Amino acid sequence: MQRPQVGELSPPDRLLMGPGPSEVHPRTLRAMAAPPVGHLDPAFIDVMDETQELLRYVLQTENRWTIPVSGTGSAAMEAAIGNLTRPGDTVLVPSNGYFGDRMAAMVRRAGGAPVRVDAPWGEPLAPDDVQEAFTEHDPDLFGFVHAETSTGVKQPDVPALTDIAHDNDALVVADVVTSLGGVEFRMDDWGVDAAYSAGQKCLSCPPGASPLSLNHAAMERVQSREERPRSWYLDLSLLDDYWGEERAYHHTAPVSNVYALRESLRLVVEEGLEDRWARHERVAGALREGLAAMGLEPVAEPDWWLPSLNTARLPEAAHVEPGDVIDRMLEEHGIEIAGGLGDLAGEVLRVGCMGYGATPDNVTALVAALGDSLLALGVDVDADAGPATVRESLRSN
Amino acid sequence: MQRPQVGELSPPDRLLMGPGPSEVHPRTLRAMAAPPVGHLDPAFIDVMDETQELLRYVLQTENRWTIPVSGTGSAAMEAAIGNLTRPGDTVLVPSNGYFGDRMAAMVRRAGGAPVRVDAPWGEPLAPDDVQEAFTEHDPDLFGFVHAETSTGVKQPDVPALTDIAHDNDALVVADVVTSLGGVEFRMDDWGVDAAYSAGQKCLSCPPGASPLSLNHAAMERVQSREERPRSWYLDLSLLDDYWGEERAYHHTAPVSNVYALRESLRLVVEEGLEDRWARHERVAGALREGLAAMGLEPVAEPDWWLPSLNTARLPEAAHVEPGDVIDRMLEEHGIEIAGGLGDLAGEVLRVGCMGYGATPDNVTALVAALGDSLLALGVDVDADAGPATVRESLRSN
Repeated sequence: MQRPQVGELSPPDRLLMGPGPSEVHPRTLRAMAAPPVGHLDPAFIDVMDETQELLRYVLQTENRWTIPVSGTGSAAMEAAIGNLTRPGDTVLVPSNGYFGDRMAAMVRRAGGAPVRVDAPWGEPLAPDDVQEAFTEHDPDLFGFVHAETSTGVKQPDVPALTDIAHDNDALVVADVVTSLGGVEFRMDDWGVDAAYSAGQKCLSCPPGASPLSLNHAAMERVQSREERPRSWYLDLSLLDDYWGEERAYHHTAPVSNVYALRESLRLVVEEGLEDRWARHERVAGALREGLAAMGLEPVAEPDWWLPSLNTARLPEAAHVEPGDVIDRMLEEHGIEIAGGLGDLAGEVLRVGCMGYGATPDNVTALVAALGDSLLALGVDVDADAGPATVRESLRSN
Repeated sequence: MQRPQVGELSPPDRLLMGPGPSEVHPRTLRAMAAPPVGHLDPAFIDVMDETQELLRYVLQTENRWTIPVSGTGSAAMEAAIGNLTRPGDTVLVPSNGYFGDRMAAMVRRAGGAPVRVDAPWGEPLAPDDVQEAFTEHDPDLFGFVHAETSTGVKQPDVPALTDIAHDNDALVVADVVTSLGGVEFRMDDWGVDAAYSAGQKCLSCPPGASPLSLNHAAMERVQSREERPRSWYLDLSLLDDYWGEERAYHHTAPVSNVYALRESLRLVVEEGLEDRWARHERVAGALREGLAAMGLEPVAEPDWWLPSLNTARLPEAAHVEPGDVIDRMLEEHGIEIAGGLGDLAGEVLRVGCMGYGATPDNVTALVAALGDSLLALGVDVDADAGPATVRESLRSN
């Protein structure tokens, strides 16, 4: 066979302001590039302990059972859904975004039956509707999305939902992929039994090791299953032998990804979780106002606005495809933003404001570039109003 | 909650000569630390194409269906086993090592029935036994381990096995975790329908993106399944939308791990695959002789010796636990080696000779340190004979 001719890696310089991966702090990149030690080395066991402790802080939980799953966010998601869903279980999932559908798909793979609580794309779940769905379906497990990446909607008042579930003897699993480390989330105080996330959103870590936490009730359900979970790789009772006290070999952990996650979490701790939430709100608030000043109205109402992911409609009169705007932003400005998924495909832009990338300078540059891009595409827009509004908002907040 | 106090990452300096992870080339570490771009960025699509092309070369295959799985080696293993095993299928797996048992576990998770072809730990499968097992069980799928990491045994004459399987209308899946990039393996010429591997062995890449390849017959079986595979994350027909022509979003790829794998594969190409196989044989041959010169007899016969993983028995008269030797090697010399698994637990040392770490200097240092460690533990050993034999072997080969 011919030897392939493949040149030196030279990725372009991008500013990642889409739905993720997000900008990565240089310290995280440097930690990831440390020469790996063995995955059973006593020094790595310490790294594991520290990473678990850091994860507990960021999730605001005391759960012993808090680990990075060896894969990207969807692996942590399937670890949660696949272990907590027993064959024949009824699992209530939301219909108001892309990731509720993914939950349903994973429930089916696990042998469960998904049922839905409805809300339109762009709105959160209403507690009354959740109550009604519980009355109708009596589910064993209730999954909801705290921060819906496809719509930019945050589920407000999480305890209102977890109370309903617990009153009905169901467990609750929360998708905090796009909120963890950027938007207030309090696992224990809010009564969430299991939560999963990803590195590449508000934690600003390259994807590959993904947070997962289960409380005692959730882990008890996993360990009392009659039929083993359907994935060996993601079987939490086997992972317990590795991440728990035994430290027995299960699979080789992605050592370098754990290094990177640990450093990303240290950066969260240094900033302070509350301060980090406040920064996201301030900077993304300016972004939201700047977009609106150019006629890009937010999809999410203020009450359920998700700072880390901003979904904005292009003005109908603009007569421009989101894809053309996105391509121009990438090609001319090196800035990554994204378009809509599912019900919002072709209608909206999705702009991330996550972690290390959520800075005044980045959102100012982004809004300015977006104004220029729209002008260049023939849209009648007051391009200067965007950056001016961003700066005004940042000065006053 | 209190903020955790976790200091700067400072892993100890190790020479990784165990069963993996192995030593990583500085260029690979540097590639991994390149700032990630988006997983749907046109620039990353090019990186994906190049990585697939490089993987095909290293696997010696033309299979279009050749990708890095987003997880460590066991994820690629479960992707292969879980997608190719349909509920009710009979799957023939080997009993001569740790990873045959893992195959059986994964077959059961997929709803299949594992049956065994027997061989003792430390020996390869005999074609006659495989033929007999086919006659008895008529399996739909036959899995074998080309390079058994637990025993240091290479399965010789792979075509003898694949011919039996194909004559009986079964597909063949090969575990090439510890051979790929270090020990001769020719996927297409040898009639292997599906093969999986890992980064952290002879490819010398940090774990997290793991090679997998399926030929047309294997992919056809996946795509014609009546029941979808039991893992959504590892469903190869969904992954086809992302790694195939569509490039549709499935999950976020571990961008940095793909960067690292691509660079590791480039290093294989630069050296040349045949030259790399020859280097492993020469350097590991010296290691094997050096160990034997100190009374550590190899478990594997020469005909099925696996250069990348050397399993050697401690002399019975030594009265020393492998664990004590391993601890001393790590603590006093910073060299990682490992002990036995399963049937060989407590009896053997396992010494890797993989990829970037498979150098004359490393094996010389390792054998010298091992001699000193045995002496220090009170073993009556000719410690100088080890390194002298290594050097002599390297001079004459």
